[in-house]
Amino acid sequence: MSVSAKRIALAARPKGEPKPSDFRLEDYVAPVLGEGQVLLRTIWLSLDPYMRGRMNDAASYSAPVPLDGVMEGGTVCEVIASNFADLAPGDIVLAHSGWQTLAVADGKMVRKVDTSLGPISTAVGILGMPGMTAYTGLLDIGQPKAGETVVVAAASGAVGSAVGQIAMIKGARAVGIAGGKDKCDYVKNELGFADCIDHRDPDFAAKLKAACPNGIDVYFENVGGAVFEAVFPLLNFFARIPVCGLIAQYSDTADSTPKWAGSMMRTILTKRLAIRGFIVSDFASRRGDFLRDMSGWVKDGKVKYKECITDGLENAPTAFMGLLKGSNFGKQLVRVGPDKV
Amino acid sequence: MSVSAKRIALAARPKGEPKPSDFRLEDYVAPVLGEGQVLLRTIWLSLDPYMRGRMNDAASYSAPVPLDGVMEGGTVCEVIASNFADLAPGDIVLAHSGWQTLAVADGKMVRKVDTSLGPISTAVGILGMPGMTAYTGLLDIGQPKAGETVVVAAASGAVGSAVGQIAMIKGARAVGIAGGKDKCDYVKNELGFADCIDHRDPDFAAKLKAACPNGIDVYFENVGGAVFEAVFPLLNFFARIPVCGLIAQYSDTADSTPKWAGSMMRTILTKRLAIRGFIVSDFASRRGDFLRDMSGWVKDGKVKYKECITDGLENAPTAFMGLLKGSNFGKQLVRVGPDKV
Repeated sequence: MSVSAKRIALAARPKGEPKPSDFRLEDYVAPVLGEGQVLLRTIWLSLDPYMRGRMNDAASYSAPVPLDGVMEGGTVCEVIASNFADLAPGDIVLAHSGWQTLAVADGKMVRKVDTSLGPISTAVGILGMPGMTAYTGLLDIGQPKAGETVVVAAASGAVGSAVGQIAMIKGARAVGIAGGKDKCDYVKNELGFADCIDHRDPDFAAKLKAACPNGIDVYFENVGGAVFEAVFPLLNFFARIPVCGLIAQYSDTADSTPKWAGSMMRTILTKRLAIRGFIVSDFASRRGDFLRDMSGWVKDGKVKYKECITDGLENAPTAFMGLLKGSNFGKQLVRVGPDKV
Repeated sequence: MSVSAKRIALAARPKGEPKPSDFRLEDYVAPVLGEGQVLLRTIWLSLDPYMRGRMNDAASYSAPVPLDGVMEGGTVCEVIASNFADLAPGDIVLAHSGWQTLAVADGKMVRKVDTSLGPISTAVGILGMPGMTAYTGLLDIGQPKAGETVVVAAASGAVGSAVGQIAMIKGARAVGIAGGKDKCDYVKNELGFADCIDHRDPDFAAKLKAACPNGIDVYFENVGGAVFEAVFPLLNFFARIPVCGLIAQYSDTADSTPKWAGSMMRTILTKRLAIRGFIVSDFASRRGDFLRDMSGWVKDGKVKYKECITDGLENAPTAFMGLLKGSNFGKQLVRVGPDKV
C-alpha cells in the first residue's frame, strides 16, 4: 500500500527570522508499511518555539532538521493502518510525525491518547509537552512556596499560562508578561494572575517592578532578551530560574550581549541564584504525576487553557512565523485534518 | 578594665585593586567588658578573598565595613577575660573579631574550638570556613559522581585544594588550575590531582581542554574572568557550577563583559547547566557532617592542607593585597600573637 500525501519541507536554513521561502509545500508518497509500523493521518499539528532551533545547522538538544527534510513537530493522529499489534485503525495517538498529512511511524514510538482526559488536541497542549514543561520546570526546578512571587513571560501561551496557574495552585502570587492589552487582560481576568505587564509598554521595566513589590522568587524563563534584562534586577536572594526557552533570541544571528552580562555571575553569587536549563524529557519519570495532577486541575477548572487554531497544513509556515513574533493568542495548533473522516 | 591594642582600619574605599593607603594601622583602647562579653587576644587572623567585597560600599552578602571601621575577618583567639558563663580565660575560640590584636565580643557570638581535631589554625582553614565552603559547595551543589571530571581554580588555595581532594574521595577525577609551576607541581604531586594547568600559560585554554578529554561535569567557580571563559565551552550536558567566588573580578571597576556572555543563557538551556551561587552560611546545618568527615579525612591523610603564614598584624594589608593577586601559596594566615603568652 502506498498513498500520496502533502508535507512541508525545510527549503533553506533561515538567516535570522524565518521567511516563507524557507519552507516548501510538496507532495510525497508515504512509504509502504514495514513490520511493526503504523500509518498515521495527522489531525493536529503542534507548533512550538523550539522548532526554530531545529531549523539551524547547530548543535542543540538534538539533531537539526536536514535540508529538504520534513519539518519536525508533535502531532495527534488517527491510526489508519497498522502492522503493530498494540494499535488498530481508529486509535488516536500522540506522535512526533512532523508537518505532513500522513506519516509512517514505528508503533512503539507513538503513544495512545487517553481520550477520556479531554479533547484530543490537549495531548499536544495542556496535557502534553507544553503542560508538562510548565509542570516540571516550575515544580521541580522553580519550587514555588506559598506567598512567593512567580513571574512568567508569554503568559497567555501554552507554557506560560500553565506556569502561572500552577503557581497559584501552590499558593504563590503569579505575575505575567505578555504582548498587548488583549493578552494581558485575558491573563488577569480569565486566568486570575495578580497582574500582567505588557512588554511592549515603554515603561515595561518600571511597571514590572511595581507589580512585584516583594521582588521575584521564581522567574520561569521562556523568552530571554529584554524581558530577562528587566527581570534580573528584581530577583530576590535565593531566587530560582528554570530556563525553558529563549524565544526572543532564537533568530539572533549574532551573540547579543546585554548590558548586564558582565555582572551576571556576580549577582548569581551575591544573591545565591539558582539557574538551571531543562527540557521536558529530562523529567520523563514525572509523566504519571503530571497527567494525574494536570487532568484533575483542568477538570476542576483550576487550570484553563486557550487554543489558537490555524486551518490547513499549507498555512503552518505562516502560523509558525507568527508564533515566533507572538501573533498567536493561546496554544498554536494547526488543524491538518478533521477529527473523523 | 580597659587595655590598649592595635587594629587595622579601612582608611579609604579602594578603586580597583586595594593599595597600602586604603588601610591604616592604629592604636585603640578596647572597651570595658559588658555583661555576657569576653575579651579576646587574637592568635590567628584569616585572610580571605571575600573581604575585598566588604571594602566596597555596595550591597553584597552583608553590610560593608564602614569607613574608618576595623577590617572584618575570622580569627582564632584566646579568651583572656570573661563575663560569659560558658567561657573561661585560656579557652581557644573561633571569632569574627577582625584585624586587631584584642577584641571584645559577645560570648554567644564566638565558638569554642575543639583543639583535639588539629592545630588551632585549622579552625579558620581546612576545619573552618574555607574547608566547609569546599565541602558544602562541592557535595551539596556540585554533587560529583564517580568517574566525572571536577575542575577547580585556585587549586593550591584553602578552598580549591579541599574541593579537588574531596572530589577524589568521591571517585571523581580532579583537574586543578593554579598560577605558576610551583603551585601546579604541588597540586599534582602532593595533592594527587590528575592534572593542574597554569592559567598564566599562553596556551592555557588548549591545555585545559586537553586535560579534560571527557569534558567538565562540575566546575567549582571561585575565580571568574578569563578562567571561566576557558571552562565554559568544555562544560558537559547537565554540568553543575557552584558559584563560590569570583576573585579575578573583585577589583573590576567596570562591568566586564566577556565575549561569550550573550550566548551564556543559550548554553545553559541547551546543555541544561545548573549554576547556583552560595555562601557557606547557607549550609549551616551541615556543620556537624563537615567536621566529622573533614577531621577524619585530615587524620587519615586523605586531605592535606598548606598554610601560608605572615607574621604580625601590621603586615596583614600586604598579605591581603598579595592574596588577591595569588602571591600566597596555601591558606593565607596572619600570626597576630603567639599560641601562648
